[in-house]
Amino acid sequence: MPAPPVCVVGLGQLGGSLAAALLAAGREVSGWDVDPVARQAAQGRGVRVTQQLGGVVVLAVPLPAMAGALDGLEVDPDATVTDLGSVKVPVVAELSARFGERFVGGHPMCGTERSGPDATDPELFRGARWALCLERGTDLARWLRVAEVALEVGAEVVPVTAPEHDDAVAAISAVPHLLAAALAAAAGEAGTLALSLAAGSFRDGTRVIGSDPGFVTAMVTGNAGPTSVALDRVRRQLDRPWPDLIASGHAVRTFAPGRRTVRVPLDRSALLALGRAGGAVNRRLAAFVEGWVPDVGG
Amino acid sequence: MPAPPVCVVGLGQLGGSLAAALLAAGREVSGWDVDPVARQAAQGRGVRVTQQLGGVVVLAVPLPAMAGALDGLEVDPDATVTDLGSVKVPVVAELSARFGERFVGGHPMCGTERSGPDATDPELFRGARWALCLERGTDLARWLRVAEVALEVGAEVVPVTAPEHDDAVAAISAVPHLLAAALAAAAGEAGTLALSLAAGSFRDGTRVIGSDPGFVTAMVTGNAGPTSVALDRVRRQLDRPWPDLIASGHAVRTFAPGRRTVRVPLDRSALLALGRAGGAVNRRLAAFVEGWVPDVGG
Repeated sequence: MPAPPVCVVGLGQLGGSLAAALLAAGREVSGWDVDPVARQAAQGRGVRVTQQLGGVVVLAVPLPAMAGALDGLEVDPDATVTDLGSVKVPVVAELSARFGERFVGGHPMCGTERSGPDATDPELFRGARWALCLERGTDLARWLRVAEVALEVGAEVVPVTAPEHDDAVAAISAVPHLLAAALAAAAGEAGTLALSLAAGSFRDGTRVIGSDPGFVTAMVTGNAGPTSVALDRVRRQLDRPWPDLIASGHAVRTFAPGRRTVRVPLDRSALLALGRAGGAVNRRLAAFVEGWVPDVGG
Repeated sequence: MPAPPVCVVGLGQLGGSLAAALLAAGREVSGWDVDPVARQAAQGRGVRVTQQLGGVVVLAVPLPAMAGALDGLEVDPDATVTDLGSVKVPVVAELSARFGERFVGGHPMCGTERSGPDATDPELFRGARWALCLERGTDLARWLRVAEVALEVGAEVVPVTAPEHDDAVAAISAVPHLLAAALAAAAGEAGTLALSLAAGSFRDGTRVIGSDPGFVTAMVTGNAGPTSVALDRVRRQLDRPWPDLIASGHAVRTFAPGRRTVRVPLDRSALLALGRAGGAVNRRLAAFVEGWVPDVGG
């Protein structure tokens, strides 16, 4: 069966980069954006601009625009629909209610503080983890179809449930943005001299809050419950004696296990177990997928 | 008057880089390190290894080793002594008691998570701010002599008092290290899936806790009072509504005023005022220094 066509709705940094990466891999890509400037930029890079969508339809729009992203567009009733949003429980709830087993929630763990169609980069996904939701109601064949799109642009696919995803990204994405904001705002309180002495550790620790505040706010408020839990974990860590805290943080930051190649059957439980073990899928074969898990010895 | 010779005690990352930068600028550099491997590496790069120190003597050793760094070495009674330590109040107190007005506390705001003599980089100081303490008892002529060493390796000199320095670096260096540790440790609690999905914002937010834990612990415990105050500021920021916190952090992170060139007389109050305004010295002239302050309009 030939790979289905891919239609990207929203041609900003993420969607535009995905379109560019698929075009670079020799795939045909169609797409749409409400912004005529973004449409024109994408068309100039070889994207067929259309309002008729089919195959794998990728919603690459900001979270607040997700629900209305397909309004006024014509979607093939057999299309598989996926998204690139940074929160999964509310998105999966909303879009599964509309598309049933045809919806597969996704989240590529990449992107930078830049945004917009000028920030597109066909290499953006190479080596990135791409979380892909395997809910009880997900059609595994459609999940694999979306996984193949992710693999084709060089990402590694991490099978997750939406709640697992949201807990994880609260800890490693929402909270880092809030800490960066608090670090910058507190240094602003400390004064002009502090900001003028700021060097590497401050620059690194605040980089992500250079991102568009609307994007960051949507990400944290859209995942408020898990983000609160994850932020409380940080607060408790900050109350520990500093030498203990420093030793723990250093141990986590520098832990670098090897990888062990595994084959996983096309089965929801087995795939989710791979994700929970910290592994990822990097190849689709006929009756199984190939991937890896951290090799922690023992 | 010719530039005085520079003697660097401690030839690890910072000291070795300073020696390399001065050698690259055509200056003669002598130095010493308790570690014969570091001595040999420095000698191979052109440093004259000796235990007889004079001119400007730079203590480039870890904080816990500062007090004993000159034990067993012969120091010219007219030498100017400075240091590169990341905390200034205790270091200035201890070394001023020993060297009086001959001691000038300093702290170049650079360095990376790498350490040791293999990490030396003659460009390490280029464009960096170098805080230099102007206490009531500091001899201004000696302060200028140390400032010239900093300017020669491409740094900009920020005149500060030791307490001002320690408050500032608590906010922009000690606290970022503690937040990085808490972020990493809390993500470790969140679990394997979270760590496996960790991408740019987590990597940036935890980078500095990849540093040697002993170095980080010495930095924060050696500046405990100001660090507690600065950490409390962060805690209060984290209690604000997230959209407000994000807006404040973004505003501080992206504030980028221009620079206005200024001339400052060789006077303690005028120099300290330059530092408090967020400015720095980048040129020594006969009767004044030239520098810049942020141009915030108005």
